Amino acid sequence: MPLDPIQSLGESLGKAIIIKCKRNKTFKGILKSFNAHLNVLLEDVDYTYFERDSENEENLIEKTEKFKKIVLRGDSIVFIGINKG
Amino acid sequence: MPLDPIQSLGESLGKAIIIKCKRNKTFKGILKSFNAHLNVLLEDVDYTYFERDSENEENLIEKTEKFKKIVLRGDSIVFIGINKG
Amino acid sequence: MPLDPIQSLGESLGKAIIIKCKRNKTFKGILKSFNAHLNVLLEDVDYTYFERDSENEENLIEKTEKFKKIVLRGDSIVFIGINKG
Amino acid sequence: MPLDPIQSLGESLGKAIIIKCKRNKTFKGILKSFNAHLNVLLEDVDYTYFERDSENEENLIEKTEKFKKIVLRGDSIVFIGINKG
Amino acid sequence: MPLDPIQSLGESLGKAIIIKCKRNKTFKGILKSFNAHLNVLLEDVDYTYFERDSENEENLIEKTEKFKKIVLRGDSIVFIGINKG
Amino acid sequence: MPLDPIQSLGESLGKAIIIKCKRNKTFKGILKSFNAHLNVLLEDVDYTYFERDSENEENLIEKTEKFKKIVLRGDSIVFIGINKG
Amino acid sequence: MPLDPIQSLGESLGKAIIIKCKRNKTFKGILKSFNAHLNVLLEDVDYTYFERDSENEENLIEKTEKFKKIVLRGDSIVFIGINKG
Repeated sequence: MPLDPIQSLGESLGKAIIIKCKRNKTFKGILKSFNAHLNVLLEDVDYTYFERDSENEENLIEKTEKFKKIVLRGDSIVFIGINKG
Repeated sequence: MPLDPIQSLGESLGKAIIIKCKRNKTFKGILKSFNAHLNVLLEDVDYTYFERDSENEENLIEKTEKFKKIVLRGDSIVFIGINKG
Repeated sequence: MPLDPIQSLGESLGKAIIIKCKRNKTFKGILKSFNAHLNVLLEDVDYTYFERDSENEENLIEKTEKFKKIVLRGDSIVFIGINKG
Repeated sequence: MPLDPIQSLGESLGKAIIIKCKRNKTFKGILKSFNAHLNVLLEDVDYTYFERDSENEENLIEKTEKFKKIVLRGDSIVFIGINKG
Repeated sequence: MPLDPIQSLGESLGKAIIIKCKRNKTFKGILKSFNAHLNVLLEDVDYTYFERDSENEENLIEKTEKFKKIVLRGDSIVFIGINKG
Repeated sequence: MPLDPIQSLGESLGKAIIIKCKRNKTFKGILKSFNAHLNVLLEDVDYTYFERDSENEENLIEKTEKFKKIVLRGDSIVFIGINKG
Repeated sequence: MPLDPIQSLGESLGKAIIIKCKRNKTFKGILKSFNAHLNVLLEDVDYTYFERDSENEENLIEKTEKFKKIVLRGDSIVFIGINKG
């Protein structure tokens, strides 16, 4: 059997990854650590999400925020992408 | 392997953090303690959320409340941001 | 490491707290006991919630009910606020 | 530490309680037994809920059904109220 | 302490019960077995549910299907009713 | 006590079953194996689901796909029907 | 008893599979590893999903992205299809 999928993230420590979460939340940053529950520590993070326009709920507005570090809960994650093609 | 992502929060004890939860709830405050389930004790908290306008459900109203202390359940958390850039 | 966030609720036994749950449900009452899953026993409770107007689903109606005692499931809780500022 | 919140329900065995569940479902009945997961056996139950009008989804219709006994799953419960004021 | 709520279903083995699940799904049938997670084996089952009208999503259509046997997951269940009054 | 509900699926190995999942997804196929979490291996599968019309979200379109084999997660399953009447 | 459903994925290591997730997300790629929680490592991945049109929320737009590798959380998966017919 090859390496466990989560343990295979060890190759990406110190490298840029992309994390896609529920409700179209996206995090791009440097992977600093992770654990078996897929909780993740990221640095130099760009966080992109969509917010409903408060004046017209049918419009969605894309927003970006920057963080030096985040701890992201594994439960929120759909997938982690490595070396996007 | 570097420090577990949740344990790495130890560096932020006594410092200001931002916590983003499901449904655009945001908490800003001083991190006083946390556990392995990411339950968190915060002090001097600003809590910001969006509420539907009771007379026109398509409008969203931003609201803020202040609390001296809160215990926040880990299950509600999407991520914890440190040193926002 | 400081006290576990949930155990720190011990200081509030016998005191008034506010509990915010999913879907804008709010409970105010006296904290009588709790356990590690954040199940909570409250006394002298004011329970506030929003209900859709049965004749016009776009309207939300705020309602309040009183209870002598409630047992609240931890899974429903977003956060517990202490000493609101 | 006072009695665990769930164990404190022991005082209500044989008495009338009200159980509020997700999506505005309400159960009134006599508490016959419970376990640590808050699964509950009720007798002489009035079950009230809201159903969308099948011809006009924006209307909600309140409905009541009676049951001699029900076993209610703890996962569905938001809170159990005792001695409503 | 009286019998555990789930174990009390033992009295209903071989008898007709009604099971109410999330999203207004209802199952009527003969209880053949169950386990501690409230997984259930039913025989001679009438399954009733509501489906959105594919041409007009605001209309809900009640549908019924029959099964000789089903295995129903406990996670889907809200409550099990016995001897409906 | 009769056979555990999940273990009773052993009688259906090699036979056609129907699996109903959340959001009206239906799988028909031959049951090849299962485990205690109700994860299931099916062969010769017809998968039917409803998709919103991308040009008019109020319309639902029924779609069918065929698979030689699928591994279906137990968490997605509402019930497994045997010998539909 | 035949092979556990999840272990039966061992036959597909190094082969193309299709993974269907909640909310119509689809992943096509080469299965490199998996574990008992159905966490999966895929290579050469085509990821297809639907996004609401930000200017007209009633329209859905199909989008595709490519990734060299992804780690997909088992919790997001509805089923894994092998040898689509």
